[in-house]
Amino acid sequence: MAKSKYHSRKRKQYAIPEPGTTPGYVYIDEKSLTPKITLHIYNQDTYEEIILDNLDGIKEKISDKKYTYWIDIKGFKSARMFEVLNNDFNVHRLVLEDITRSYHRPKFEEYDGYAFAISRMLRLDPDESLWNEQLSFILTKNTLITLQENYDDCLGAVRKRLSVGKGNIRIAGSGYLLYALMDMVVDSYFSILNVWNERLDMIEDRLLDKPDKSVMFETQMIKRDLIAMRRVVWPERDKMNDILRSDSNLITEQTKLFIKDAYDHCVQIIDMVESIKEIAATNIDMYLSIISNRMNEIMKVLTIISSIFIPLTFIAGIYGMNFSKQDPVTGKIMPQNMPELYQEHGYLYTLIIMGAIAILQIIYFWRKGWFK
Amino acid sequence: MAKSKYHSRKRKQYAIPEPGTTPGYVYIDEKSLTPKITLHIYNQDTYEEIILDNLDGIKEKISDKKYTYWIDIKGFKSARMFEVLNNDFNVHRLVLEDITRSYHRPKFEEYDGYAFAISRMLRLDPDESLWNEQLSFILTKNTLITLQENYDDCLGAVRKRLSVGKGNIRIAGSGYLLYALMDMVVDSYFSILNVWNERLDMIEDRLLDKPDKSVMFETQMIKRDLIAMRRVVWPERDKMNDILRSDSNLITEQTKLFIKDAYDHCVQIIDMVESIKEIAATNIDMYLSIISNRMNEIMKVLTIISSIFIPLTFIAGIYGMNFSKQDPVTGKIMPQNMPELYQEHGYLYTLIIMGAIAILQIIYFWRKGWFK
Amino acid sequence: MAKSKYHSRKRKQYAIPEPGTTPGYVYIDEKSLTPKITLHIYNQDTYEEIILDNLDGIKEKISDKKYTYWIDIKGFKSARMFEVLNNDFNVHRLVLEDITRSYHRPKFEEYDGYAFAISRMLRLDPDESLWNEQLSFILTKNTLITLQENYDDCLGAVRKRLSVGKGNIRIAGSGYLLYALMDMVVDSYFSILNVWNERLDMIEDRLLDKPDKSVMFETQMIKRDLIAMRRVVWPERDKMNDILRSDSNLITEQTKLFIKDAYDHCVQIIDMVESIKEIAATNIDMYLSIISNRMNEIMKVLTIISSIFIPLTFIAGIYGMNFSKQDPVTGKIMPQNMPELYQEHGYLYTLIIMGAIAILQIIYFWRKGWFK
Amino acid sequence: MAKSKYHSRKRKQYAIPEPGTTPGYVYIDEKSLTPKITLHIYNQDTYEEIILDNLDGIKEKISDKKYTYWIDIKGFKSARMFEVLNNDFNVHRLVLEDITRSYHRPKFEEYDGYAFAISRMLRLDPDESLWNEQLSFILTKNTLITLQENYDDCLGAVRKRLSVGKGNIRIAGSGYLLYALMDMVVDSYFSILNVWNERLDMIEDRLLDKPDKSVMFETQMIKRDLIAMRRVVWPERDKMNDILRSDSNLITEQTKLFIKDAYDHCVQIIDMVESIKEIAATNIDMYLSIISNRMNEIMKVLTIISSIFIPLTFIAGIYGMNFSKQDPVTGKIMPQNMPELYQEHGYLYTLIIMGAIAILQIIYFWRKGWFK
Amino acid sequence: MAKSKYHSRKRKQYAIPEPGTTPGYVYIDEKSLTPKITLHIYNQDTYEEIILDNLDGIKEKISDKKYTYWIDIKGFKSARMFEVLNNDFNVHRLVLEDITRSYHRPKFEEYDGYAFAISRMLRLDPDESLWNEQLSFILTKNTLITLQENYDDCLGAVRKRLSVGKGNIRIAGSGYLLYALMDMVVDSYFSILNVWNERLDMIEDRLLDKPDKSVMFETQMIKRDLIAMRRVVWPERDKMNDILRSDSNLITEQTKLFIKDAYDHCVQIIDMVESIKEIAATNIDMYLSIISNRMNEIMKVLTIISSIFIPLTFIAGIYGMNFSKQDPVTGKIMPQNMPELYQEHGYLYTLIIMGAIAILQIIYFWRKGWFK
Repeated sequence: MAKSKYHSRKRKQYAIPEPGTTPGYVYIDEKSLTPKITLHIYNQDTYEEIILDNLDGIKEKISDKKYTYWIDIKGFKSARMFEVLNNDFNVHRLVLEDITRSYHRPKFEEYDGYAFAISRMLRLDPDESLWNEQLSFILTKNTLITLQENYDDCLGAVRKRLSVGKGNIRIAGSGYLLYALMDMVVDSYFSILNVWNERLDMIEDRLLDKPDKSVMFETQMIKRDLIAMRRVVWPERDKMNDILRSDSNLITEQTKLFIKDAYDHCVQIIDMVESIKEIAATNIDMYLSIISNRMNEIMKVLTIISSIFIPLTFIAGIYGMNFSKQDPVTGKIMPQNMPELYQEHGYLYTLIIMGAIAILQIIYFWRKGWFK
Repeated sequence: MAKSKYHSRKRKQYAIPEPGTTPGYVYIDEKSLTPKITLHIYNQDTYEEIILDNLDGIKEKISDKKYTYWIDIKGFKSARMFEVLNNDFNVHRLVLEDITRSYHRPKFEEYDGYAFAISRMLRLDPDESLWNEQLSFILTKNTLITLQENYDDCLGAVRKRLSVGKGNIRIAGSGYLLYALMDMVVDSYFSILNVWNERLDMIEDRLLDKPDKSVMFETQMIKRDLIAMRRVVWPERDKMNDILRSDSNLITEQTKLFIKDAYDHCVQIIDMVESIKEIAATNIDMYLSIISNRMNEIMKVLTIISSIFIPLTFIAGIYGMNFSKQDPVTGKIMPQNMPELYQEHGYLYTLIIMGAIAILQIIYFWRKGWFK
Repeated sequence: MAKSKYHSRKRKQYAIPEPGTTPGYVYIDEKSLTPKITLHIYNQDTYEEIILDNLDGIKEKISDKKYTYWIDIKGFKSARMFEVLNNDFNVHRLVLEDITRSYHRPKFEEYDGYAFAISRMLRLDPDESLWNEQLSFILTKNTLITLQENYDDCLGAVRKRLSVGKGNIRIAGSGYLLYALMDMVVDSYFSILNVWNERLDMIEDRLLDKPDKSVMFETQMIKRDLIAMRRVVWPERDKMNDILRSDSNLITEQTKLFIKDAYDHCVQIIDMVESIKEIAATNIDMYLSIISNRMNEIMKVLTIISSIFIPLTFIAGIYGMNFSKQDPVTGKIMPQNMPELYQEHGYLYTLIIMGAIAILQIIYFWRKGWFK
Repeated sequence: MAKSKYHSRKRKQYAIPEPGTTPGYVYIDEKSLTPKITLHIYNQDTYEEIILDNLDGIKEKISDKKYTYWIDIKGFKSARMFEVLNNDFNVHRLVLEDITRSYHRPKFEEYDGYAFAISRMLRLDPDESLWNEQLSFILTKNTLITLQENYDDCLGAVRKRLSVGKGNIRIAGSGYLLYALMDMVVDSYFSILNVWNERLDMIEDRLLDKPDKSVMFETQMIKRDLIAMRRVVWPERDKMNDILRSDSNLITEQTKLFIKDAYDHCVQIIDMVESIKEIAATNIDMYLSIISNRMNEIMKVLTIISSIFIPLTFIAGIYGMNFSKQDPVTGKIMPQNMPELYQEHGYLYTLIIMGAIAILQIIYFWRKGWFK
Repeated sequence: MAKSKYHSRKRKQYAIPEPGTTPGYVYIDEKSLTPKITLHIYNQDTYEEIILDNLDGIKEKISDKKYTYWIDIKGFKSARMFEVLNNDFNVHRLVLEDITRSYHRPKFEEYDGYAFAISRMLRLDPDESLWNEQLSFILTKNTLITLQENYDDCLGAVRKRLSVGKGNIRIAGSGYLLYALMDMVVDSYFSILNVWNERLDMIEDRLLDKPDKSVMFETQMIKRDLIAMRRVVWPERDKMNDILRSDSNLITEQTKLFIKDAYDHCVQIIDMVESIKEIAATNIDMYLSIISNRMNEIMKVLTIISSIFIPLTFIAGIYGMNFSKQDPVTGKIMPQNMPELYQEHGYLYTLIIMGAIAILQIIYFWRKGWFK
């Protein structure tokens, strides 16, 4: 049944800090996953992928300046891991808190020796609810660390491009890799928007064919998801802008040209979000006017039938009255009581009058355009 | 049938990149057209038009500084062509990607040695759907390259002005040609707005004469197209502004005076778009209030007829009851059972009472203004 | 009939350039009027008015530095006139195009040796449609040229003040005259707003007395005209601001004090436009709620009457059934068939029950507040 | 009757200048009041109040630098008075015009040797219409002139504070007095907002108890007054800001600290206005949904009663038909005509069937939740 | 009963100053509470808590520079206390007024030697009304004074962290303590938003299951509280920003890093408030469309039943008429009067015709989709 579909919809859950906990407290949820750590070591010529159990001694593994390193961390269930990030990479505790509290808006912040960025990965579930996950970046001179809560993500294409050694990605350093991943995330928004766009088109078709209640519900659900996406894209755009205006040496001028492109994509997406929202609003307006129109039609049917037959029934009722021509007891003749009943063509004339009334009404309603 | 008209409407299709493709990848769709290339060579005195098969060796053809060159490219099905643009004109791969992904907002970007701009050509189909196509410009010192996906466009008037040698266009160089083409595109928006304006006027007339469902649908369709146009005109205005504030030597101060004029036109169009949108909203509001009013009228007819005849029918029903004056079996006389039936003028009095009730009700409804 | 009033309403016609015409092309419509040119020559002591046929030799006529000159041009049907403006006053062709394309927003632009400004004159027709005409100004050191398409305007009061030699206007030069004319135009907006304000008050009275469909139509018409006025006033304010911030020597500091006052008036008008728009929206909201309320009342009447009489009619129908106490053929007695009919007070009891039902229902509806 | 209340409401009247009058013309309405002038002379130690008939020779009366002077003018019917202001205080004619045209927005302007400010006094009439009056200030080194059209105002508390010699007001000069009066005006807005807030709370209570049409009207009236107040408060805030940023020596740094406080109050009031407006909108939304709900209830009553009794009446109608078992003329027996009528329990069975139908329908409607 | 719940809701009461009281007047309400003063003395190593009766001699108690001091004041009923603040700490009278007038927006102001800040503590009552209380801060070099009207607050967690000596809070001085308390307040907003979010989810479930009137009321109540929260959070964000941009030496650079974090939280909350507001609006839209749909269903039931039975009842009425085949008095035979009644299968044919009409109508309504 249709209802259950909406009921089963996952609700957004914000992992909100217990008010009053120490700022900078690294919060590790009980249900969080054991970390899977992959270390990608590459330069123009070579590419190697190492699976790590933990980050201990990571500093030595990434010390060779000839390579660029990507530490790809999935799952947060290791206090030790954050310890290492704090000690070896000098990452501020507030940054670590931001990574583990996974409800942050996209942002870009520069710290002493590293930069910190957040992107939000959006994904449509098969049942069409929107998943919204945080991807955190720590960027140093030749290393990029990415952190995400779950094992699934939408970054497969970038990993592949990296391993097959295609183009810029192997040459342009950790800043470019940061860009490539962020751009990947932004590009995935386009696909989601396209799904919604198509669903709205289908809803519009249903609107014109046979609109029902689900039109309203489905459009509202899309609208709600659009609101969620908008909350992500605006700060995403600001983030790109912050990177562009940053004078950090972690992002080369060359890479900024690409970031500019990603910035344009964000603007494009904001544009599309607003347009699709307006189209959704249009659908709802149309649906409401269709309901009103339908009500009018229902009322017309009722009114036409009632208006025609109620007067006729009244006439029939008149001649169904039992006023007596003759008193059954005394036998007195009362010729004024319903003389029509005793005329030879009384019945015929009555039928003719009824027909005439009905026809006049039909003409009246016809003229009013109620049969259209 | 009316419905099919809306159904047949072409849906906007965004040629969205496969998420994860390499940035700067020149995407050539399978359905794209074989390029038609026209090289216009002109100065104040001479004008020549050469049809080219490809761009090979183009560099030599446009080397004479005495002339201005316009390379007019229609259709993208040639990877080689983009290769030449990249090599001979030094056009950045991201720019080439922007040209082939034809869903970009109008923009103006300066690069080393050339400038890149995008305009969007809008066109109303005979079935009144809005076509939205991208026109890309690459501007160098004395050459303008324009690129568009389809063979049709709205630039015929400019080509003619160029060939007949009218006015500024032959003297003022490639920057002015860029302006002339952009201005042409913007001017064509006026015509489209005028079509919508007239259609809204016609819809308004229908609203006052005999409003029906199509009023709602057609107004909403125009509103949707207005949303699409607004998405184009705002960045178009920003683009003009970017050109005005640019200190590139590709655009002379003289040409900027004209660009200022085109900028004013954009503002004018934004203004008109907003006004027409508000008029469309007004039409929809009026339509909804008309539906409500009509419902009121339908209900009034039903209520008047029901209220008058239902009580009368009840009275007729009363005297249609069979309470017996005399028990048919025992012959007992029961004088209290429906004595009215056996009075000499019972029928007459009943009719008079019924008439009085009807007249009282009519007076009541008249006073309430329901017959107005 | 009411409808025809709205039908006869003039529609706004934008004199849109044919897309692709040369920029700077001076467009003279066939239906434009033959120019009437008046040259006002004045200083503190003298005032003279000369009717001119054309602008030939105008340069000499206005060469004496002791006077201020106002060239007041009405009607555009003279290509020669624009020629003179171009040659003698050095007016740019784009400016001339702006003058003849009479759909421009108010603006102020400084050129080499002169300034160009546009105001829009608004006027309410007797049938209450809004006329919107362009007034163009060319201001030089001691001369002001005004250009308008039609012979009628709202500048009579300024001409009179000039001729009777009252106050500042004769002393303060061409810049002050520009201000006086612009201020005149802005002041006329106040009167129009007042007319609308009064009409809305009248509509509100009707709303409270006896609202009908015309309330909606008339309010929407005013709203639409307000939108048109807003499109004029916002750029008008910006224009005043541009003049204030201009460092042109054509406008003295003394005059700027007055321009500041006109700027305040524009802000005032914007304020009033927004307020009146909100009041119009309020009227529409009230009207819609009144329609809903009225529907409720209609439904209440129908429901009360139907609910009372339909059950009673049913009871009457019961006792109108012909179940036989005695088989007419066999003469068999069936005492269980409708024994009520043969009881001495059956009719009376039935009437009493019917009355009781009716009273109970009336009490029920009374309690629900439906008779209020 | 309720209507008359709204009808009697005073309408806002803008004293709009006749278009085309000379700028700077001091307009004195015929109905304006004879001026009452009070001269307050005070310093830390002494306080004196002098009633003046006119402003002649005012310059000498306020020449002693040891005192601060407040010239408190109520009523404008004296051209001579404005003459004196123009000559003795050097007040610009445009300023005088602003004082007499009493529809100006709050503003603060600095002139040579004096500053000019406008506040707007709002007041709720006993019949709850909003009065909106202008209070103009002319501030010089040690003198403050206030001008208002009517004798009533809301400044009594300040006059009292001044005369009883409480606190800062006697020490801090004319700038502080300006502040004290402006702050007084702003504080009075809080009281008005509180009245509206309480009325909205009362309306909300009525909404939950027994909503009627007046809910809509009263809420809309408050909304309209809120719009009027908003038009006043925004420029009021800007005025405070202009004073804060002014480097005039008429306002001491000490006083600016207080102005900052008044600025905060304006922001507070803007906040409250917006909140109360949203609450008003919420009330209207609720009212409309209540109307819809009520319509649903009315329709349910009608539908339940009609649906139950109409079929039953039909059945009764069936057995009220007169199909004959025996031809009255020929005496022919027709056993197939309405045999039910001649069965021993025909009546009983019919009643049972009718009851069953009614019960089934009641169950159906119950399940649909229509009795809730 | 549901109503009483909304009725019992506490209304917001603004403690508005009597217009005209002296600015800087410290207003102490009669109902205010006797102050409870706690002096926290701490540094990295020691922590001590002293309960004070009044602030007399406080200057000496906090003179040792080795410690940081927090003076935690609850309840305002002591004019003497404000006296001390004014004299010993040099707090401006306007600041003291702001503290006692507890309706101020969050703000941060720097004065000579101290800074003044306001936060607003929000709290959900068990009956779900929103409490909104003011928390004022006075920050000096090594002392923080907090002032609040009531004894209850949401700062317990910070007091505990301070006493158990956890982390930064004991080391980083009075500026950090200010941050910790402000951050605590902001964090508590998250919990409130979460409650509303969950309630809206529950309302949405009810919407899909069995929507009733309370959906509207409860959603509107949440919306109203959201408006109240928004009024708090926007200035809260600005306050954080003011602190960040302040160059006061009371806030160290180290602490600003944390303030930046709190700023991000404010932005997050603004975001959530807007989203939840949009979701609330969506719920209301859905509810209204559900009401409309339900009305349609009710009308359909009425129309189907009426349309089917009213014509049938009419036919039954026809054959209930008493047109006579034979004059009861004269015995004249009138064969044209209702011959159907005397035909052998008249009754049967009539029933068949009635059945056919009913079936045709059912098919008609089925096709229209009314049974769906």
